[in-house]
Amino acid sequence: MYSLGELADRLDLAVTGDRRTTISGLASLTSAGPGDLSFLAGASHLPQLRSTRAAAVILSGEYAAHSPVACLLADDPYLAFARISPLFAGAVPPPPGVHASAVVDPAADIHPGASVGALAVVEAGARIGAGAILGERCFLGRGSSLGAATRVAPGAVIHAGVTVGARCVIHSNAVLGGDGFGFARGPQGWERIHSRGGLRIGDDVSVGANTAVDRGTLDDTVIEDGVIIDNLVQIGHNCRVGRGTAIAGCVGLAGSTVVGARCTLAGGVGVVGHVEICDDVHVTGMTMVTRSIREPGSYSSGTPMAPTRRWKRNAARFARLDETQRRLFRLERRRARDSLE
Amino acid sequence: MYSLGELADRLDLAVTGDRRTTISGLASLTSAGPGDLSFLAGASHLPQLRSTRAAAVILSGEYAAHSPVACLLADDPYLAFARISPLFAGAVPPPPGVHASAVVDPAADIHPGASVGALAVVEAGARIGAGAILGERCFLGRGSSLGAATRVAPGAVIHAGVTVGARCVIHSNAVLGGDGFGFARGPQGWERIHSRGGLRIGDDVSVGANTAVDRGTLDDTVIEDGVIIDNLVQIGHNCRVGRGTAIAGCVGLAGSTVVGARCTLAGGVGVVGHVEICDDVHVTGMTMVTRSIREPGSYSSGTPMAPTRRWKRNAARFARLDETQRRLFRLERRRARDSLE
Amino acid sequence: MYSLGELADRLDLAVTGDRRTTISGLASLTSAGPGDLSFLAGASHLPQLRSTRAAAVILSGEYAAHSPVACLLADDPYLAFARISPLFAGAVPPPPGVHASAVVDPAADIHPGASVGALAVVEAGARIGAGAILGERCFLGRGSSLGAATRVAPGAVIHAGVTVGARCVIHSNAVLGGDGFGFARGPQGWERIHSRGGLRIGDDVSVGANTAVDRGTLDDTVIEDGVIIDNLVQIGHNCRVGRGTAIAGCVGLAGSTVVGARCTLAGGVGVVGHVEICDDVHVTGMTMVTRSIREPGSYSSGTPMAPTRRWKRNAARFARLDETQRRLFRLERRRARDSLE
Repeated sequence: MYSLGELADRLDLAVTGDRRTTISGLASLTSAGPGDLSFLAGASHLPQLRSTRAAAVILSGEYAAHSPVACLLADDPYLAFARISPLFAGAVPPPPGVHASAVVDPAADIHPGASVGALAVVEAGARIGAGAILGERCFLGRGSSLGAATRVAPGAVIHAGVTVGARCVIHSNAVLGGDGFGFARGPQGWERIHSRGGLRIGDDVSVGANTAVDRGTLDDTVIEDGVIIDNLVQIGHNCRVGRGTAIAGCVGLAGSTVVGARCTLAGGVGVVGHVEICDDVHVTGMTMVTRSIREPGSYSSGTPMAPTRRWKRNAARFARLDETQRRLFRLERRRARDSLE
Repeated sequence: MYSLGELADRLDLAVTGDRRTTISGLASLTSAGPGDLSFLAGASHLPQLRSTRAAAVILSGEYAAHSPVACLLADDPYLAFARISPLFAGAVPPPPGVHASAVVDPAADIHPGASVGALAVVEAGARIGAGAILGERCFLGRGSSLGAATRVAPGAVIHAGVTVGARCVIHSNAVLGGDGFGFARGPQGWERIHSRGGLRIGDDVSVGANTAVDRGTLDDTVIEDGVIIDNLVQIGHNCRVGRGTAIAGCVGLAGSTVVGARCTLAGGVGVVGHVEICDDVHVTGMTMVTRSIREPGSYSSGTPMAPTRRWKRNAARFARLDETQRRLFRLERRRARDSLE
Repeated sequence: MYSLGELADRLDLAVTGDRRTTISGLASLTSAGPGDLSFLAGASHLPQLRSTRAAAVILSGEYAAHSPVACLLADDPYLAFARISPLFAGAVPPPPGVHASAVVDPAADIHPGASVGALAVVEAGARIGAGAILGERCFLGRGSSLGAATRVAPGAVIHAGVTVGARCVIHSNAVLGGDGFGFARGPQGWERIHSRGGLRIGDDVSVGANTAVDRGTLDDTVIEDGVIIDNLVQIGHNCRVGRGTAIAGCVGLAGSTVVGARCTLAGGVGVVGHVEICDDVHVTGMTMVTRSIREPGSYSSGTPMAPTRRWKRNAARFARLDETQRRLFRLERRRARDSLE
């Protein structure tokens, strides 16, 4: 429970209306009720703003006149909302200490301010920093470490040889540091290359549920500071993902891929192995990246969605594209000859 | 072990041949042996029907004359087969009660007819209904609930604030109610938006193995009654999936997507965030849905598969499509001028 | 710690330089230091070879003259490297025996030379072979079996009715033998088809992290010997994958798909249900396989990546492909008529 004035002071924002307005929760413009703080992301939601029953709204100053209620004025209302969100998130952090049912090797080094949940397994030499939380039923392998204030959700597996920095969030059933998919073709079939490298994850990294990030073959796989990775993402062995890059759900990076800093890979993007994507690249959803990208900018592949009947006709034509373009060029040449005659 | 007559009576079907035929199992037409009941899905399998060694076959009346064995006559043989399948599934339901190795908070409310498997974790305030099964090594978070006769397979994680209805099946290592991938871009990098919403799953819902469904940011993510979701599906925060919709494997729905009732999203489909798909839409495999769909029907994107050598030539032409179409139009205009001259 | 001569003798390779060179680790050409063995995969890395600080390098004889250090000469350096890799992998195998915290049914049959990790669950009738490792927090269901020397990483779930052969590796949080996504559409909605089939996995198979392989509906799903499957792959019910086939990350096979022997499915490939892919087929990344493939060779679909602005123009033209090709043909016919006149 905060007053609007307290929130404004925390975030250094101006207020219109009564600073004493009590804020007890967060809600969207349409579902907000008394005591709720909401936010206006952009002009398209002005109708919802006008009829909101929220106690107050975070918005850009230019829209304040449209608000029927008190306002917090922010240059970036969404960012201000993000910063207020932890105050009302409601999740109860577990108490520090190791749950009696966890299986912890005596040679693990667990900070007294850290928390190890029920039925977790911690192997010898593992280290857990101050305020870190290893959730219920997680696994932390031999010699691996979690930095201060990092939170690992129930069921995640962190293999041996993995370093996770501070303030990270690893979501449930993610797998960090599994063996890479490296095989050589021998006369009798595939022969496994045994991974020797590790996995280094920087500070402030987020890894989604059911995501897998493999360890390196010889050198380490590296996820730099501030990288955010959504659910069901696959990151192969020896990859390097640069600072502040965002990777949306269902993306796959094959082995030895390098992604620069501040990139955004939209959902379902695939990147083949051994290519490099430079800094500040955006790749649109479900694009297949088949070569290195050396210039910042936005990249795409695919075809636009259409009703299937119409799409089928166009798709069938795609299969004759080479032929028809050749026919066009022939026609052009004939036309040119005609003109000369 | 049932007689053919008993099965016919249960499903209200007619029989040709001996009602006393003993049925002890189910099998496909080709692998069936004595005692097995099989089914004919359609005319394309008539050759296998003629040579089957099954004891009896479920089929549509029009094909009964082709069967060498007794028949159950059904308008929809596949549906009849589905209804008979649980009688022979052979899975042994666990006994009611809480396994001694489970870690259950005393403030959890577990129906005496429910079952909690080995090494499961149940937090305070969680509720498990009559006949529900929380499998081995599952996690059920604070205040979350499972409806009557719902079954959760080993390893699934159900976070706090999740409601699962009755008669659902949640498959192994699925993650329900993880935090959404919501971040605002701040001057120092991504700033996390702490989720406050929950996840509501209706009755008769199926969620596949390694699938993730995120909780909402402010309001709840909602999966309505009768939705079936396959393995490795990602459903982002704030999504709403309508009654009876089917979502095949490897589909990804970005945040705040709304999918109507009775839709079918085939395997690998991706849907961008903040779009709406109306009721009764079918999207074909690996289509990228980049805008709202407001008319029922079938939708597609992509190009047809071809031998790589041929595909490469056509794909290279795709990269010049705009140019060549312009050249075509120029040629048309010239042709039109020629005709006028 | 090995001498170069010992390694050469093990793999039957020739040496240039001092056979007594001590090898204490493996590293890439650029990160190698004293005591490290590295390898040269191909001519493109010759610059790194010339400046390497490795103690020795595995390479093809033709490049030996470029090496500043001792060499192991191999026809296939990558394969030789694969075979040396286990000697230096550094993973500590767990001791044989059942961890005190594991929950093992007395009617399970566990070889005294096998290892069952902390908090694992083993049901009645399950069998674990000599030297096999069931990792921490794994689940092995009723009557399922692991062959000799098979290793299951922490968190994997192996349901009842699954046979895993010898020398397999099942990575963390993989799910083997979950129910198939089989439903019949009834008047009230989807009706579940209860799976009765199992899952048979051959010898020397690898299954990646967070991958799911469903059991069969009536007959078994089958993964033949030597198949390697990467992370986040979905294999539907009733599939059959042939000997020695490789399936990269994020691939999805719908139900009842048959893939032949020695195929390679690159990352993100999708295959619709009920099709057959013959032996020796390669499918390039993110291709959608919508029909059976009856000839060996390489197959593709999709369009090439391009800067989004340029891509948008071409993609918009794709939506008019049928129309423009018709217009081209009309123009051709007119031109032909003109010539006749």
